Amino acid sequence: MTQPIDVAVVGATGTVGETLVQILEELAFPVGTLHLLASMESAGSSVMFAGKKLKVREVDSFDFAQVKLAFFAASPAVSRSFASKAEQAGCTVIDLSGGLDDALVVVPEANGDSIANLKLPARITSPSCAAVAVAVALAPLKGLLDIERVQVMAALAVSAQGREAVSELARQTAELLNARPLEPRFFDRQMAFNVLAQVGAVDEHGHTAVERRLVGELPVLLGLPELKISVSCIQVPVFFGDSFSVAVQSRNPVDLAQVNQALEHAESVERVENDDYPTPVGDAVGQDVVYVGRVRHGIDENQQLNLWLTTDNVRKGAALNAVQVAQLLIKHMA
Amino acid sequence: MTQPIDVAVVGATGTVGETLVQILEELAFPVGTLHLLASMESAGSSVMFAGKKLKVREVDSFDFAQVKLAFFAASPAVSRSFASKAEQAGCTVIDLSGGLDDALVVVPEANGDSIANLKLPARITSPSCAAVAVAVALAPLKGLLDIERVQVMAALAVSAQGREAVSELARQTAELLNARPLEPRFFDRQMAFNVLAQVGAVDEHGHTAVERRLVGELPVLLGLPELKISVSCIQVPVFFGDSFSVAVQSRNPVDLAQVNQALEHAESVERVENDDYPTPVGDAVGQDVVYVGRVRHGIDENQQLNLWLTTDNVRKGAALNAVQVAQLLIKHMA
Repeated sequence: MTQPIDVAVVGATGTVGETLVQILEELAFPVGTLHLLASMESAGSSVMFAGKKLKVREVDSFDFAQVKLAFFAASPAVSRSFASKAEQAGCTVIDLSGGLDDALVVVPEANGDSIANLKLPARITSPSCAAVAVAVALAPLKGLLDIERVQVMAALAVSAQGREAVSELARQTAELLNARPLEPRFFDRQMAFNVLAQVGAVDEHGHTAVERRLVGELPVLLGLPELKISVSCIQVPVFFGDSFSVAVQSRNPVDLAQVNQALEHAESVERVENDDYPTPVGDAVGQDVVYVGRVRHGIDENQQLNLWLTTDNVRKGAALNAVQVAQLLIKHMA
Repeated sequence: MTQPIDVAVVGATGTVGETLVQILEELAFPVGTLHLLASMESAGSSVMFAGKKLKVREVDSFDFAQVKLAFFAASPAVSRSFASKAEQAGCTVIDLSGGLDDALVVVPEANGDSIANLKLPARITSPSCAAVAVAVALAPLKGLLDIERVQVMAALAVSAQGREAVSELARQTAELLNARPLEPRFFDRQMAFNVLAQVGAVDEHGHTAVERRLVGELPVLLGLPELKISVSCIQVPVFFGDSFSVAVQSRNPVDLAQVNQALEHAESVERVENDDYPTPVGDAVGQDVVYVGRVRHGIDENQQLNLWLTTDNVRKGAALNAVQVAQLLIKHMA
């Protein structure tokens, strides 16, 4: 039996934070006392956990010495403001925001071993959904491929931007179907029946934060520091479930039979045969795995492997991965 | 003054065929007599051209000796059945279906010169929307880049699959917004608020016809027979306007200032600055250019050029390109 530990969830009222609390319960994570935290605006509301209504308190006045583990599921700025305070109080931080540059990036199926060497308290990053999905799909193939480059085109669901984005897509769609004039609110333009070239703002080099996150995180997760990565993340009119078109350039020919076999046996992977394919709505949403389909060579190129991935961006791509990291941690703590 | 020539349009009642007839009129193409043709099911209806209602006749019984030029905007099977007959009757064929393997692929902005060497009557392919968009954007950069590989991720609108696909997306969306159970008809699953991993069926190697078309057509259009191409085409819930995320791997460093300047002056290209980006609905639909945005290096890679393209799949990506090819042809005929 694992000893229960006291846990804090920062950003408990957001899409990911709420799902995280739910997953702690689903997986019977050995929580002692659960502290739900949020910014001043969201504090005061309550969230259900293990049959009880828990009040959400302000993160600013929380004493992190009360907990051994804190999930940060708010903005990068919140993580940057409070993670050091938490760590100094003896609390290990699992950050989902991508705001901590010096944290160890972990996806248990890819580099779970790296947790064994951690000195606690520590700061850990649960990476972007793109990095989780690609790492879960490619980690089991590392022995088969001599990977030189990974090209990822990500079609991201609006829920990554929170509840407002979800309701705005629904509202815009209804307006258009009723032939009413469209006045975009959350997005700066029409999102319904449209595709946006980027998710969030670009920096001075034209890259978005979510694109930079993948390039920073994937080499660590796959243990390939020299890995070349090309990435474009676009926003599609889908509520939940991210999809990824992945092309892997290998230095050796790709044996598809071996790849399929490895995927078949891989942890957290659901391989779909080529007479069908997985979709975010039809397969990924609500599930705890990364669906992998369209397993094929490049056209006229047997050193290229093409894959189609789809996963629940809120669960597997964020909250569930963070809780799975925490499960590894408590083994390590024990 | 160019001499008027007699023209046939096969597939005149389809989305692309109808737009083609409209563009012939818009561009004041020197049409003598226009013959509108379709399969038995669609024959008998009429289409407006130059203020007159023209009756659509059955292609089976048409004598192609009556025309000097025929556009084939129906299925690949129709092109394969009638193109040889047309050519033998002295008629030059411009095929939009991709059904003719031995036809010369032409995008005027990329390889318009190649028409000068044609012996008429000839068979020409107006390529897939993906090939048109990528060729129009990359042709002006050929002098600046030593292109080794082009990676294309295409997010295709449902209209490429015809009118039924368009009304099915609208119907599914309305059903879902009204919380009614979804019974997919045209698509084999939910298309609204979803992304499909492929457009059309895959062959025994896992590739779709539209993906194979791009790999066949792009090297010809760019005059780069050794070009390596990786491609994935996905179906997004957008009515009109295809989008493309393109990564170009160059053997030399990419000078972004020069690239931007070349795009600024390129024919049929509308470059959008990086503080904004083009979208299918907001920019491309109804326009005659390829919008190019998000012009940037790869992250940490100055030998990679990334672009975001969007264009009207029915106009620039199909009907307009075919008519522009015909304009070159009649100069050549004169």
